[in-house]
Amino acid sequence: MSQRKAWRAAIVHCIADPKDVGVENAYEYFEDGLLIVDGDKISAIGHAKDLLPSLSADTLVEHHPDGVITPGFIDTHIHYPQTDMIGSYGEQLLTWLNTYTFPEEGKFHDKSHARDVADRFLQELLRNGTTTALVFGTVHKVSVEAFFEASEVHNLRMICGKVMMDRNAPDFLTDTPETSYQESKELIDTWHNKGRLHYAITPRFAPTSSDEQLKLAGKLLNEYDDVYMHTHLSENKDECAWVQDLFPASKNYLDVYDQHKLLSERSVFAHGIHLCDSEYHRLHETGSAIAFCPTSNLFIGSGLFKLSKAEEHKINVGMGTDVGGGTSFSMLQTLNEAYKVIQLQNENLSPIKSLYLATLGGAKALRLEDKIGNLAVGTEADFVILDKKATPLLTSRLALSKGIEESLFVFMTLGDDRAIKATYSAGQCVHQR
Amino acid sequence: MSQRKAWRAAIVHCIADPKDVGVENAYEYFEDGLLIVDGDKISAIGHAKDLLPSLSADTLVEHHPDGVITPGFIDTHIHYPQTDMIGSYGEQLLTWLNTYTFPEEGKFHDKSHARDVADRFLQELLRNGTTTALVFGTVHKVSVEAFFEASEVHNLRMICGKVMMDRNAPDFLTDTPETSYQESKELIDTWHNKGRLHYAITPRFAPTSSDEQLKLAGKLLNEYDDVYMHTHLSENKDECAWVQDLFPASKNYLDVYDQHKLLSERSVFAHGIHLCDSEYHRLHETGSAIAFCPTSNLFIGSGLFKLSKAEEHKINVGMGTDVGGGTSFSMLQTLNEAYKVIQLQNENLSPIKSLYLATLGGAKALRLEDKIGNLAVGTEADFVILDKKATPLLTSRLALSKGIEESLFVFMTLGDDRAIKATYSAGQCVHQR
Repeated sequence: MSQRKAWRAAIVHCIADPKDVGVENAYEYFEDGLLIVDGDKISAIGHAKDLLPSLSADTLVEHHPDGVITPGFIDTHIHYPQTDMIGSYGEQLLTWLNTYTFPEEGKFHDKSHARDVADRFLQELLRNGTTTALVFGTVHKVSVEAFFEASEVHNLRMICGKVMMDRNAPDFLTDTPETSYQESKELIDTWHNKGRLHYAITPRFAPTSSDEQLKLAGKLLNEYDDVYMHTHLSENKDECAWVQDLFPASKNYLDVYDQHKLLSERSVFAHGIHLCDSEYHRLHETGSAIAFCPTSNLFIGSGLFKLSKAEEHKINVGMGTDVGGGTSFSMLQTLNEAYKVIQLQNENLSPIKSLYLATLGGAKALRLEDKIGNLAVGTEADFVILDKKATPLLTSRLALSKGIEESLFVFMTLGDDRAIKATYSAGQCVHQR
Repeated sequence: MSQRKAWRAAIVHCIADPKDVGVENAYEYFEDGLLIVDGDKISAIGHAKDLLPSLSADTLVEHHPDGVITPGFIDTHIHYPQTDMIGSYGEQLLTWLNTYTFPEEGKFHDKSHARDVADRFLQELLRNGTTTALVFGTVHKVSVEAFFEASEVHNLRMICGKVMMDRNAPDFLTDTPETSYQESKELIDTWHNKGRLHYAITPRFAPTSSDEQLKLAGKLLNEYDDVYMHTHLSENKDECAWVQDLFPASKNYLDVYDQHKLLSERSVFAHGIHLCDSEYHRLHETGSAIAFCPTSNLFIGSGLFKLSKAEEHKINVGMGTDVGGGTSFSMLQTLNEAYKVIQLQNENLSPIKSLYLATLGGAKALRLEDKIGNLAVGTEADFVILDKKATPLLTSRLALSKGIEESLFVFMTLGDDRAIKATYSAGQCVHQR
């Protein structure tokens, strides 16, 4: 029996960064398109009228006349253990960690709790069309095991890591430089590149790691070719001042990580709001990426990410929901907030750039653009079907929209989980509304 | 047959402004409450165990074990003719008006178009739990007639007015000082205080009215005891500079309206972002109110409203969605955005203050607090039933929340139209999810 299947709908995906080639040249659009999948990979994409004749009579074609197919969304910064504390009230970063985050993360020594949360977390991601994420675990090794086991069930391309944290946190959440190195290494050896899973070495952020722990994290990163590094950078002004106090020998916040050899082509730094020019420059030079987390940055009152500075310095940028600092699993709603962050700086974020950031841009930040991020032939069939009739307001507004750019903008402005009709991972349906 | 009916659920409503009495004293909460309605008015509110015995056996009691009853929401600034242009891309205020708003508003010379949009607009408000709104029409008299006729069908307490605009706008959208005065007067005489409807004299904003038109608007306002005045104030910096150019004799933006006698206890100014101390002072002195429109202020990139300045000057403040500059009809989502605006200024917005702004605070801004805005005995039975199990995420998050303040905050952070199980106006169900 053939494993070929096809989906007929409007199809849009990015093929380049709009900043490099202009908006018009950055995407392909098929108003009545066909996406053909063989097994877990995309084997053809194009106009339905061109491709339909090539299909054998027994190929199943799903037709979605009100659908828009896009690549699965990529979330480059999120904390799965914070699922149950989403929408916690009233604090900025440092107090927020102590008041809400640390007590919640304490529960993840229990693997069955971790697995329960991981399952619900993945359901939320898939309901919202996100097929790949770069995910924080907790300090507990079992938290990462539970997450990878839950991800394997759906054959998702996921990246996760155990938090390394040996100071400035409650005792029940700290490890030591040696145990963090050892446990991370064991997790890498078991899980990294197993199926579609990858490992990220995950020091929480500079203030909760000693020099020795950061040094061992850097050592570990350099022992492997393609392991990730995932941490926070320059989110909040009090945090930045604290880092300066804790690491008086560092030139700036990024330099703390740099001194410990934690910058690399697979290093992703969440936030990066309050950076100086030399930090932007060094991020570029090392091929490191930034996760732009607008909802979280507004909700915790951290500040406004300067996308144009990152562009100017040619830094790879992906989108992050940063749940639970962010308050939505929805990449569409996250792009709505991104638009506002840019508007407040008197600049514009085009819907194609937004789509890019949430798909191919995220894939490039994660060095996975040969596998995911767009719908090119040969890539993995991770995609979503958006529904133009998901709500009364989307229905009436999209009926009046002119062209795919405006339609995408409307989805990003008015859409939420309901706009995701179905989510596919490696060719298999993993969510249906 | 008795017109008595009762609803059993958690009930919460504000009885004062938290800034005056403290958060704890600003609200009443009944964990297992009963709301009794006779005809269109509330006749009792309290603990179910106290009130149930007083009911006769044939009184219908609706029980919502997962429900939270709050007053209907009050939207103090919204444009119904912009329903179909919600989520328009890429501009700040002045270009946005010319590119999107004016062409759209041009369609409202046609009463059947106006009625169609008014009906859909009201459905969206009711789906989102909003029972009263202060609403812009267009320059066309028929736009307001269509709106009032549509509102009468549901017996809603609504306020609307014809836009007065005699310059700096396309010909097809301008009136003259005399026709705007005359048509507004005719609308007042027909509709003001008819059933639950009220009229608002509605100069769009200073730049689109001549001195003569503003003067006649002020004359009209002072011919009636209780007619409203509704306009925009200090939303965008370019707008402020333009007002200074157009009215060189004015001390500041507000002073343009003040010189034309447009400040009053029933005057509501949308936005008020870039105000100086003397403007805050003069708003207070005249009993004028501000509509705080956070979603719009972020989406159009206008800036951050200074709620603490308004509080310091004891100015009445209500919430506005400002659709179509705002991108959501949901008061819950609007409060989410309000929280972010305040966080970005390193302050906090408590969930009780948010509830206050969206209900009793809005009612006070509109001088309707004897009729709507809370659930006091004798007031009109405008209320909503929130559903703690509206989505999987709300269900799991609310199951962990401790107390009504946290629950409200979760509703305001994660909730949308789905969280509104039912909406009642004057005791009648006007929306059921």
